[in-house]
Amino acid sequence: MSAPVTPLPQVDHARTVFADGLALDCGATVRPLVVAWRGHGTLNAARSNAVLVCHALTADQYVAERHPVTGRPGWWDTIVGPGKPLDTERYFILCINVLGGCMGSSGPREEMTDGEGRGLGRPWGTDFPSVTIRDMVHAQKRLLDDLGIERLLGVVGGSMGGMQVLQWAATFPDSVFGAAPIATATYHSAQNIAFHEVGRAAIHADPAWRGGRYWEEGRIPAQGLSVARMVAHITYLSEQALTRKFGRRLRSDTNPLGALTFLEDVFEVESYLRHQGSTFVSRFDANSYLTITRAMDYFDLAAEHGGDLAAAFRGTRTRFFVASFSSDWLFPTRESRAIVRTLNAAAANVSFVEFETDKGHDAFLLEEPAFHRALGGFLAGCADRLGV
Amino acid sequence: MSAPVTPLPQVDHARTVFADGLALDCGATVRPLVVAWRGHGTLNAARSNAVLVCHALTADQYVAERHPVTGRPGWWDTIVGPGKPLDTERYFILCINVLGGCMGSSGPREEMTDGEGRGLGRPWGTDFPSVTIRDMVHAQKRLLDDLGIERLLGVVGGSMGGMQVLQWAATFPDSVFGAAPIATATYHSAQNIAFHEVGRAAIHADPAWRGGRYWEEGRIPAQGLSVARMVAHITYLSEQALTRKFGRRLRSDTNPLGALTFLEDVFEVESYLRHQGSTFVSRFDANSYLTITRAMDYFDLAAEHGGDLAAAFRGTRTRFFVASFSSDWLFPTRESRAIVRTLNAAAANVSFVEFETDKGHDAFLLEEPAFHRALGGFLAGCADRLGV
Repeated sequence: MSAPVTPLPQVDHARTVFADGLALDCGATVRPLVVAWRGHGTLNAARSNAVLVCHALTADQYVAERHPVTGRPGWWDTIVGPGKPLDTERYFILCINVLGGCMGSSGPREEMTDGEGRGLGRPWGTDFPSVTIRDMVHAQKRLLDDLGIERLLGVVGGSMGGMQVLQWAATFPDSVFGAAPIATATYHSAQNIAFHEVGRAAIHADPAWRGGRYWEEGRIPAQGLSVARMVAHITYLSEQALTRKFGRRLRSDTNPLGALTFLEDVFEVESYLRHQGSTFVSRFDANSYLTITRAMDYFDLAAEHGGDLAAAFRGTRTRFFVASFSSDWLFPTRESRAIVRTLNAAAANVSFVEFETDKGHDAFLLEEPAFHRALGGFLAGCADRLGV
Repeated sequence: MSAPVTPLPQVDHARTVFADGLALDCGATVRPLVVAWRGHGTLNAARSNAVLVCHALTADQYVAERHPVTGRPGWWDTIVGPGKPLDTERYFILCINVLGGCMGSSGPREEMTDGEGRGLGRPWGTDFPSVTIRDMVHAQKRLLDDLGIERLLGVVGGSMGGMQVLQWAATFPDSVFGAAPIATATYHSAQNIAFHEVGRAAIHADPAWRGGRYWEEGRIPAQGLSVARMVAHITYLSEQALTRKFGRRLRSDTNPLGALTFLEDVFEVESYLRHQGSTFVSRFDANSYLTITRAMDYFDLAAEHGGDLAAAFRGTRTRFFVASFSSDWLFPTRESRAIVRTLNAAAANVSFVEFETDKGHDAFLLEEPAFHRALGGFLAGCADRLGV
């Protein structure tokens, strides 16, 4: 498929280090806890204008600036910036690389440490402990405490970012004024776990993965990670979007049957998918992919509350803005409706919009003006209420 | 994931050999053409009671008898047999391994031949020419001609089998009295091509595939083929079926976070999928998988008729029974409705039923009594009309 790809470049990400570490849900402690993050805009004197943006599975803290590895614009550049819905002239926008990630926060590709936090001269790899969405949120909370931010004006995120938003509202209700869980769910479904498992199986099957110790050879399990990305990418798009973008268009006008070899792409959609796979491997770490997909699979907010989902939010004063996209089949609208029903049962303040689009799950990252206006309006309403 | 698996055992499949070969859509000729097939019941003196069952991607001619490789019952044993909807006391049921398959018909794992049909002492592998659904039907037609069957009482099949049914009705309308395309479509969609491409990429990525020449090492690309099966299997099931069967049930009562290693299955759905993958590789050939998924991807009946799908069926006297399943998202009901609209536009005799089920695409292979009754009724009606 492609030549061996070398490991991710080491980048000097801005980080905050907590020497005492973080105790995780699995019982292990990561010491020190390293939190890589970026801020945009200015934290006001009252520290009341902070908005935390939680990123999805394969994104990172580079939400609104040139990415240090890919050189591409921030992943939510369309809505984060001066005068934009997440207005950096009004809010202090924070984005934190998740625990287990690969852009500077504690995770499989960082140096492994012993119980006293001493470096062991090798990456964690698969020895990095299992993390949960709640662990990610606990790590974020440590940073916010360090910054002296007692309450967030807003917590916003889509997909796995939305899981973090829900976890924030459930775990630290007094620290969240407004919460916007987007294109997400309160648990990971059997089908979504199954798709993740295919990706993990593809990584495990790549001999270059070497049981997770691929750093020893200076190359990465590029083909396995690429296949994992390909299958995930299909789930991010809608059938309509794939049909609109590619349909059954051939790559060339030649007779595909005559020209065919087994390794050639015949249809445009194949070239597109392979391209998605091969570019992904140069910006993401395979062991991080394993760690973070697992964290998503574990997510089950109801189970955390003895099966009573409403108990997660009972008595909350947080305002919620729940959003879904009509053609999203990975986190379909019915999951957002279930969130809304739960919040209603908990007597929470909640508004909900399903946006009509054919872009599928990825819509939350794309040009969707109605969604952007609604999200911006929700945050502005929170800010008005707080006098920010 | 699993130990290296040896190639498929060589089995002495019943075959008919056509020394003059078959000219394919791609321009190549396969010489000789070998057609492996099975018959159940008795062909009547008028040769008017033959029903052809067309199999799907990973099935074969062992529709109603113990499989020579797996030892399991025939894949449609539930409905093919004495007194069953495809009643072997009334019909002569034929099932033919598709061209490109791996159970004895000409395909990648059979011995490669030169232009004169002389064996070259090695398997075709990826040198086997590209085949189309139409090529498969042409190969079947050769066998039927050889058996002296001028007209089939019925042609029946689901999924890729349904594509063959549609192709039969379009290419040889006078040879098909009744046609039952089930859970299928007149073309392969961009999303379905994309899922196939993930499976192919997983096979290509397996170093044991060796550019298709895995026979040289006496082992097979088991891990790649297993991943291909895993992703395909998800598409055969519905989200509801996965939830009903597995939900988020854990494999054990132990704390999954505490016990976790990267290679362990945590959720039951993962074990199930891995099992599906690992059993598949002992009964199917990877190069056949590549060949046949491509044939499905190429399928586009409208394109074959200058974009006018109705032209494929205009003036047909074939009776059609079109069936879909409500939770099938691989070949959703809207595709069956499109077939019906086309047949209506061609003034064909057509009945259509969508069956309510949560079993997804696989429903056509499973216990679905209402579907079985309707299909049996359709065939019986054809037989009554023909005086069989």
